[in-house]
Amino acid sequence: MFETLEVGKRIKNSDFKERELPLRQKLLAVQFELAEHDYPIIIVVAGLDGAGKGSLVHRLNEWMDPQGIETNTYWEHSDEEESRPFFWRFWRRLPARGQIGIFLGSWYTKPTQAAVDEEMGSEDFALHCKQIEVFERMLSDDGTLIIKLWLHVSQDAQRLQLEETAPGKQQNPRVTDTPYNLHGKYKKVIEVCEELILDTDSSHSPWHLIEAQDRHYRDITAGEIILKAMQARASHQTPDAGAQEVIETDPAGPQPTVLDNVDLSKTLDRDDYKIKLAKYQSRLQDLAWQAYRQKRSVVAVFEGWDAAGKGSAIRRVTRAIDPRLYRLIQFAAPTDEEQAHHYLWRFWRQLERDGRCTFFDRSWYGRVLVERVEQFATEDEWQRAYSEINQFEQQLVEHGSIVLKFWIHISKDEQIQRFKAREQEAHKRHKITDSDWRNREKWHDYEVAIDQMISHTSTRHAPWALISGNDKPYARIQILKTFCKSMKRALDTE
Amino acid sequence: MFETLEVGKRIKNSDFKERELPLRQKLLAVQFELAEHDYPIIIVVAGLDGAGKGSLVHRLNEWMDPQGIETNTYWEHSDEEESRPFFWRFWRRLPARGQIGIFLGSWYTKPTQAAVDEEMGSEDFALHCKQIEVFERMLSDDGTLIIKLWLHVSQDAQRLQLEETAPGKQQNPRVTDTPYNLHGKYKKVIEVCEELILDTDSSHSPWHLIEAQDRHYRDITAGEIILKAMQARASHQTPDAGAQEVIETDPAGPQPTVLDNVDLSKTLDRDDYKIKLAKYQSRLQDLAWQAYRQKRSVVAVFEGWDAAGKGSAIRRVTRAIDPRLYRLIQFAAPTDEEQAHHYLWRFWRQLERDGRCTFFDRSWYGRVLVERVEQFATEDEWQRAYSEINQFEQQLVEHGSIVLKFWIHISKDEQIQRFKAREQEAHKRHKITDSDWRNREKWHDYEVAIDQMISHTSTRHAPWALISGNDKPYARIQILKTFCKSMKRALDTE
Repeated sequence: MFETLEVGKRIKNSDFKERELPLRQKLLAVQFELAEHDYPIIIVVAGLDGAGKGSLVHRLNEWMDPQGIETNTYWEHSDEEESRPFFWRFWRRLPARGQIGIFLGSWYTKPTQAAVDEEMGSEDFALHCKQIEVFERMLSDDGTLIIKLWLHVSQDAQRLQLEETAPGKQQNPRVTDTPYNLHGKYKKVIEVCEELILDTDSSHSPWHLIEAQDRHYRDITAGEIILKAMQARASHQTPDAGAQEVIETDPAGPQPTVLDNVDLSKTLDRDDYKIKLAKYQSRLQDLAWQAYRQKRSVVAVFEGWDAAGKGSAIRRVTRAIDPRLYRLIQFAAPTDEEQAHHYLWRFWRQLERDGRCTFFDRSWYGRVLVERVEQFATEDEWQRAYSEINQFEQQLVEHGSIVLKFWIHISKDEQIQRFKAREQEAHKRHKITDSDWRNREKWHDYEVAIDQMISHTSTRHAPWALISGNDKPYARIQILKTFCKSMKRALDTE
Repeated sequence: MFETLEVGKRIKNSDFKERELPLRQKLLAVQFELAEHDYPIIIVVAGLDGAGKGSLVHRLNEWMDPQGIETNTYWEHSDEEESRPFFWRFWRRLPARGQIGIFLGSWYTKPTQAAVDEEMGSEDFALHCKQIEVFERMLSDDGTLIIKLWLHVSQDAQRLQLEETAPGKQQNPRVTDTPYNLHGKYKKVIEVCEELILDTDSSHSPWHLIEAQDRHYRDITAGEIILKAMQARASHQTPDAGAQEVIETDPAGPQPTVLDNVDLSKTLDRDDYKIKLAKYQSRLQDLAWQAYRQKRSVVAVFEGWDAAGKGSAIRRVTRAIDPRLYRLIQFAAPTDEEQAHHYLWRFWRQLERDGRCTFFDRSWYGRVLVERVEQFATEDEWQRAYSEINQFEQQLVEHGSIVLKFWIHISKDEQIQRFKAREQEAHKRHKITDSDWRNREKWHDYEVAIDQMISHTSTRHAPWALISGNDKPYARIQILKTFCKSMKRALDTE
């Protein structure tokens, strides 16, 4: 889930200066409005060590009116705190209605550290996450607006920070003199944090993940998230307040996304393709029978840009598998019956039984892609969908299913060439519709949605595979290979 | 928590006939309204074996229009269901918008049975409860109205049912021919069910506990609960629908409450009192020092009717304890600062540290008593408070605190005599205010609120003690004795 946070999002010095002032003015304006409203705001600043949590809090205090803000830190030991139930230390520091409380070090700090140091078992950790969820829900039911920011840095950037060898301007102030004992623990930290974020990401207090390598990007993005959340709440409180400001998808200007990390130049020559196709298809055939014998089901999702070659790639996969063992589900618009149920219902009902494969040509991810971009779903609905989808896939995995998710990526240029080619070929002309052209206009909105989809739903138990799709043969082999590898890892291979 | 469900609530045959027809008409009316609205309803019928779940479902089908209702049962094994993730069997049977789905045997059945048979560990069980909570939230976020009914019968009544020796008219039809293997498991079942209910009781899908011994009371109460929930939702959907029907606190007519089980005739003579007072006070003194040495804190809540003798009882407790070891908190109206926070904040901030006692003369239970009856809190707020309070007390217990809760009960006659006596004594006259007289008028509403408070918050880790208070000496000794017993059990006594 953190792959979207290592793509080099940044804001230039000159842009930062331009953006800072209006952002600050707007933040102050909503802050003053808050004092008239009857609810408190909690801003949780969490994330990896060396990501600049302290610097960000400085900045927020600088941007807003310190009168209405209290910053709470939890890093020194206090026996007063230790001698009460864990949440006492936070209850006593909760902001009053009309006030903002920034928590630098929060209810997330202690369980994360304990889990990383393996002082806390995984069940205990899950229980802690549940308690956090209950605590936040209690506050949010009472009206508190909770804004949770997670700052991420790559392993290399963290090392530079902690060794204090980061480039001058990017350097973050250090909290303690004693060096952190994080050596060699980055992978473990990432695992624990993924679980923490998934377990505590909810519609009433969602996590906002921020790439924190570039301090300008980090600060502006955090500020825009806070602004947007406060504006949304304020307009909710006063429905007659007039036209709502349209919220940009891209508050910090166009930024690279995780898709930019896909190398689209990869190709495979014809002969090589034939050899590999035969090899992986025969391997997949075996694996599908093994899964059948072991009563493990496979749930595979295929998503991608229009004309990315989804259909032909799926055919290469299904051809390898005995027709008794799989079913391919293609999704058109939902039926009346489907529309009368929860949106996940139409996917649940299609699941094949143990030992079989279910292939989804387009899937539940429509909610956070096309339904989001085309505004068929409300913001509340698609925001909520991330955790609903994660729950759904987790239930599949816990039952023993192998969950695979492919996004086939192509460039915008490649797409236009394929559209044109299709129009010229009689038997493919039907594949191009007006909506394809319309979707194309929203290319950038989709990029943002895909980026957020990956960051919220690419999990260890059900990871996304990003497929380089400009060269179709290369894409197909990549998919088959990933398919075989994942199945092999999941099955007790003979 | 089940003590409130064994007090002999019943409806006479003639009353039943009178109540049935109007209830049925109203149920049909809201059901037809539902078809115009855009949400589904799920009715979960759960509870102990032999409580008449099947009979109730029959009745509901008889009362409402079967066209819009589908009853789903889960009692036979299906390999189709087993070969998909657990929740698949429920997803496929979810009612469509405008429809009602009754679930007899539901997502609660399997984990409960597994926990009773000790096939499932307590952590796994807690995880299951969490998944249930997530599942229900997902549906409720999507608009589903979830009504959960829990039918309870006493151990004796259950035995009569299962042996089919219950009196003719009360007998419930049996589902299977094979006798239930519940012999000797009643206590274990009750423990598992308490945890299940506490863990899955939420404001979006609260549990309604019903005493099911008397089939008339059971059916009318269930019908009224469903009616009320549907009316509340319908009026929520159409806010302009005009005056909302006032919801009675007592849909099935005045019924006995758990307070009726308190034997108010108990007395203690003067000499006996003095001996016992000295004995338990000295024991308590020791125990308080032991708790100090073991760094265990005590949180004790004193609640009761006006003039029940709370103050003087508390003094008998505090006199036994070294003043360095305890603090007594009395609650007047909340301060401005307190009112600007979540209502639990003012209690959290008062907690003493490990090894100390905190006594609350009136407490967080005000939310579900006076604030409920006087309508200072909305129904949503006080309904939510049950699970918030349970969470709070569970955190105290998990931290190592000993939680004690006393309700001092007196009769309405005894209260009036004490009021009059107070008015005649100069030094006690200030203790009687107009609000005391006003509260007295709402005696019955308070009885209902107390009954529900006990059923939702009397838990194994923090049970309520109901104190017989008509005789003050008797009440004081009871409190001291309970205090000592609970502390002794909780401490590693030397």
